[in-house]
Amino acid sequence: MKASQFFISTLKEAPADAEVVSHQLMTRAGLIKKLGAGIYSYMPMGLRVVRKVEAIVREEMNRAGAVELTMPVVQPAELWQETGRFDKMGPEMMRIRDRHGRDFVIQPTSEEVVTDIARQELRSYKQLPKNFYQIQTKFRDERRPRFGLMRGREFTMKDAYSFDRDQASAKASYQVMAGAYRRIFDRFGLTYRAVAADSGAIGGDLSEEFQVIAATGEDAIVYCPHSDYAANIEKAEALAPTGPRPAATQALAKVSTPGQSTCPDVAALLGVPLATTVKSLVLATDETNEAGEITKSQVWLLLLRGDHDMNEIKVAKVPGLDKGFRFATVAEVEQHFGCKPGYLGPLNLCQPVNLVVDRDVAVMADWICGANEPDFHTTGVNWGRDLPEPTVVADLRNVVAGDLSPDGQGELAIERGIEVGHVFYLGTKYSQAMNATFLAEDGKPAFFEMGCYGIGITRLPAAAIEQSHDERGIIWPDAIAPFTVVLCPITPDRFPAVKEAADALYAQLLAEGIDVILDDRGERPGAMFADWELIGVPHRITIGDRGLKEGQVEYQHRRDSAATKVATADILAHLKGRLAA
Amino acid sequence: MKASQFFISTLKEAPADAEVVSHQLMTRAGLIKKLGAGIYSYMPMGLRVVRKVEAIVREEMNRAGAVELTMPVVQPAELWQETGRFDKMGPEMMRIRDRHGRDFVIQPTSEEVVTDIARQELRSYKQLPKNFYQIQTKFRDERRPRFGLMRGREFTMKDAYSFDRDQASAKASYQVMAGAYRRIFDRFGLTYRAVAADSGAIGGDLSEEFQVIAATGEDAIVYCPHSDYAANIEKAEALAPTGPRPAATQALAKVSTPGQSTCPDVAALLGVPLATTVKSLVLATDETNEAGEITKSQVWLLLLRGDHDMNEIKVAKVPGLDKGFRFATVAEVEQHFGCKPGYLGPLNLCQPVNLVVDRDVAVMADWICGANEPDFHTTGVNWGRDLPEPTVVADLRNVVAGDLSPDGQGELAIERGIEVGHVFYLGTKYSQAMNATFLAEDGKPAFFEMGCYGIGITRLPAAAIEQSHDERGIIWPDAIAPFTVVLCPITPDRFPAVKEAADALYAQLLAEGIDVILDDRGERPGAMFADWELIGVPHRITIGDRGLKEGQVEYQHRRDSAATKVATADILAHLKGRLAA
Repeated sequence: MKASQFFISTLKEAPADAEVVSHQLMTRAGLIKKLGAGIYSYMPMGLRVVRKVEAIVREEMNRAGAVELTMPVVQPAELWQETGRFDKMGPEMMRIRDRHGRDFVIQPTSEEVVTDIARQELRSYKQLPKNFYQIQTKFRDERRPRFGLMRGREFTMKDAYSFDRDQASAKASYQVMAGAYRRIFDRFGLTYRAVAADSGAIGGDLSEEFQVIAATGEDAIVYCPHSDYAANIEKAEALAPTGPRPAATQALAKVSTPGQSTCPDVAALLGVPLATTVKSLVLATDETNEAGEITKSQVWLLLLRGDHDMNEIKVAKVPGLDKGFRFATVAEVEQHFGCKPGYLGPLNLCQPVNLVVDRDVAVMADWICGANEPDFHTTGVNWGRDLPEPTVVADLRNVVAGDLSPDGQGELAIERGIEVGHVFYLGTKYSQAMNATFLAEDGKPAFFEMGCYGIGITRLPAAAIEQSHDERGIIWPDAIAPFTVVLCPITPDRFPAVKEAADALYAQLLAEGIDVILDDRGERPGAMFADWELIGVPHRITIGDRGLKEGQVEYQHRRDSAATKVATADILAHLKGRLAA
Repeated sequence: MKASQFFISTLKEAPADAEVVSHQLMTRAGLIKKLGAGIYSYMPMGLRVVRKVEAIVREEMNRAGAVELTMPVVQPAELWQETGRFDKMGPEMMRIRDRHGRDFVIQPTSEEVVTDIARQELRSYKQLPKNFYQIQTKFRDERRPRFGLMRGREFTMKDAYSFDRDQASAKASYQVMAGAYRRIFDRFGLTYRAVAADSGAIGGDLSEEFQVIAATGEDAIVYCPHSDYAANIEKAEALAPTGPRPAATQALAKVSTPGQSTCPDVAALLGVPLATTVKSLVLATDETNEAGEITKSQVWLLLLRGDHDMNEIKVAKVPGLDKGFRFATVAEVEQHFGCKPGYLGPLNLCQPVNLVVDRDVAVMADWICGANEPDFHTTGVNWGRDLPEPTVVADLRNVVAGDLSPDGQGELAIERGIEVGHVFYLGTKYSQAMNATFLAEDGKPAFFEMGCYGIGITRLPAAAIEQSHDERGIIWPDAIAPFTVVLCPITPDRFPAVKEAADALYAQLLAEGIDVILDDRGERPGAMFADWELIGVPHRITIGDRGLKEGQVEYQHRRDSAATKVATADILAHLKGRLAA
């Protein structure tokens, strides 16, 4: 490609609303152009990156035996009503009526449509296993679209769905996809981690997220540096502390803590470690009748160490909380604790509550909690003495760095990641809801065992930039760079030999099948280099008159601090040596 | 590709709602699957065809210097309000509100968005000309979606938009596209015609449709077998008859024509040629005030020969009718003619009307028209004697086969076509509406001169099938066939030599870069052949045990009436000889 036949548009300044570096750089490098909140055009430079991502995904999906199809963007509501998701999905799902008043959705995902295809097309176990995938436009009406392509509304997703005759086969299909995903992410040339994720009510370990590592990532990733263990923060188990609870040494005491309504404030005021405080979280559960009216509510008190954070996924697995819960209202809190939030604790309750105690809190002695009296806390609290031994003890918290790894191989570390892929064993959730069956070998209808597998095609370039950039711009891995090589002739209008050498090398690289762009725009060298450093093309060859006279051109990788002089005759070999394998 | 790793699904019967052969065959061959009215999934077999169409279009667009980008499917209403199309577009345009109540449209086309990109990105004449294109999902909420992909609601279109500094450059850009379209349609391997189309108010001849010829086509295409002349029926001019009007020979007479309210009925009753009758069409035009209320209406009488059809596009160019017209109401007709419709004529009017006479009617003598009296017609009507010479004479009708070609090269013929592409010079219609300017060479802002260029990517396969099929199924041209070659081993499970030979030939064809599918499903020969004839793969190689023993395999093109025996050693050369160039 010659730059004059392409479209290059760079900006000195990032738009005011670009909060993250990938959004700033994608806009400045002219990869995307905002049309509305969370809605972007992919400009020619950006589209090339998206197409390379798509091509890698498509190749590896095909290699793994998946078959590509395309399902509609606009989908009739009926199928979504079959699974109940037409009502259950929140306002993120765009709903639309056609001219005849019929309901449709703009697909946020396609489980319903693909299951409908399967129940019509896959009639016998002999046709299984089958894996259908599409690379298609999705829409989610985020409340607060932001961060450019990281959390946009319209985006492209690769979504695949496997159909199997039984669990064993479904798990094998899942493993085939998990392997394909590793090959895909390896080929992208990014640092990533496949982490165990929560698989919800279905259970089992068949849910993994593919996280691109980046300091700016939204997700916390837990891993053990001494083993293969890796999980997202929702999933990672906090082991029960080893060793017995220390003996009580302090007497119970009420201390004045005026205005200090958080554990850190109380610990600071009292001059004690935050880990000696206990925070009280008050939840509520509701029972409803058939009309959906609340007939009865219960209040729950969760105790966590002051330096720990509640993990909602784990809490949602506690018996009694596993049908859904909410935070209690202030009225409910006051009714049960006789006190406003901020000074709550498990002692001196007005009305009984369901007590659930985190594993770490269960082995604490001499701890501090709210006194259920405004501006007062209680110190020296001890289980078995000041209140009964806890009966419901569970893992309620996020792990922190330094916690023991669940596999016993050392301490956990935490880093940040951006979720770009997810493989998930679905079981019969959708096939049962939609009565999607096939004729099994025994001649009886059986529900499909399903899995689903997503990759955020348009999110991947943003994640790549979050991982790989510097103060001058983007640094693409070769595999997904808009161009692999840029050829920069210096003032070729003044030096015919430069133009001639550039044209010859350009033709040579094209003939080698190398994805090269020749910058024939006639920009001054400084502006030209700044553009390509911003755009992030990984390999640059500069051809100048002085160098040519010495039989040399310059090569510089985007990560190199300076250019290397290379004999003109050797440049192709030199470049090939620097190209990613 | 091996069939066992792909997805093949054929049906014996077409669905009841499939009215046209392309819809029937695409469904039966498993290319598409209906999800809702006018909404289809592209099944793996169909998606391969779509991807081949896309690839040809993309290659030739790039070769012609156009640059690919992707604009969003969901577009904010604001831009559509700038051009007024948010209100002007009918219910075909799907409108949608997001969770914050903001209006959006699902793109039916993208003039507004691309013009918005141009006015931000193309700041100087030095950046022009530029042509941006996308291959992207579109949606039009057809009132009566039907004919499968021929008139669906969700479809894929390639839409390109050129931006130029002046008319001369814009016309050159238009010609570049018109040339690229010829190459694209040549490569598809279909019989097509580029026909002149009406360019609306903009004028000029810069509008061409690319019509795939098919007897079932919705459009009538007019062409001259002796020259290059080709136009759609809306555009094709009916030349004024040559030679003078014959002299009057008959006296005016009122004849009884009870219940005969159409020209064919009257001609039959009177035993005269239909071409001696004249039909009266009554139109009306309205003037409105600022509030949109009708302040004044005028009635128009159009006279056409009884065997001719009115051409609305031509009528809309008659001065006075060029701001919009409607058919007159029965009340208006009775008020002006004193008679109900069916017996109208230009004689004995109750109130004056604006008379517009077709070129052919203006040279008629002794003609027949309604008498403005129920159940009566008037015969022997003559201009200048029974009513004044016509003052407003215009081309109001569709041409018919046998009319003189406007280029004087003989008589016109008419065939049917399916519009799959359109190139159109837009002028400054959108750039003016959206104040889209660039800095011209004189330093002053100037409006972009634009063109737009569409290809119906998902309609093309349907048009190809309408053109090319037989009673057994589809017959694809090589370029867009889902697979170019199918390899059919006969009962390979029983004959290891057959399996071995098939596998070896399969590997050989793949190595040659030939797009081959090996049917390893183990179907019986009859069912296997029926499938591939339905699917329409153009080249089939059959490998059987008996033939192998004689050193032969069979080759059959989908159009051949029988298979040809070819020596196994020669089959590759034979196949290559039959592949399209």
